[in-house]
Amino acid sequence: MDPASLTNITGLTAGIIVTIALIPQLINIIRKNKVDDISEITYILLTIGFFIWVIYGVMRQNLAIIFMDGITFMLAFAITVSVLRLRDKSKKYK
Amino acid sequence: MDPASLTNITGLTAGIIVTIALIPQLINIIRKNKVDDISEITYILLTIGFFIWVIYGVMRQNLAIIFMDGITFMLAFAITVSVLRLRDKSKKYK
Repeated sequence: MDPASLTNITGLTAGIIVTIALIPQLINIIRKNKVDDISEITYILLTIGFFIWVIYGVMRQNLAIIFMDGITFMLAFAITVSVLRLRDKSKKYK
Repeated sequence: MDPASLTNITGLTAGIIVTIALIPQLINIIRKNKVDDISEITYILLTIGFFIWVIYGVMRQNLAIIFMDGITFMLAFAITVSVLRLRDKSKKYK
């Protein structure tokens, strides 16, 4: 294998792992409906950050970046919305 | 500004935001010593993913990638260790 494709595979592997990383956290929230220990600022920043990564992918016309960071953006956004909603609810009932 | 440097600035901005994103979560854990709602699998995957991003940065000899993803890796690793330790402790005292 030539070095360029080895580098690409390495980047792709890293991208896929980071992309799927947020799935267990989202499942956890859906199952337990609890978000007390999760930092909403972390997920707001991840949502903004990965949205800008998607813009970067569009600028570079790189489909892998658009696709992977697009999924991560959606997962981070879903977690952010869940955290803010559940936080709001738990405040109301306290 | 030429398109290439605008693209670079966009990538740099995204990278910096994702890098600092994990700081509030780590501060949260240190302050509250509570990790019940945090998915350890998410942080284990983020640790592995960003470690591979650092390897990718080394392969591409790109200092910005090595530096930013290196910090994210260390933050994700610190959160993973904290979550596993506190999880273990809370099990012991239950």
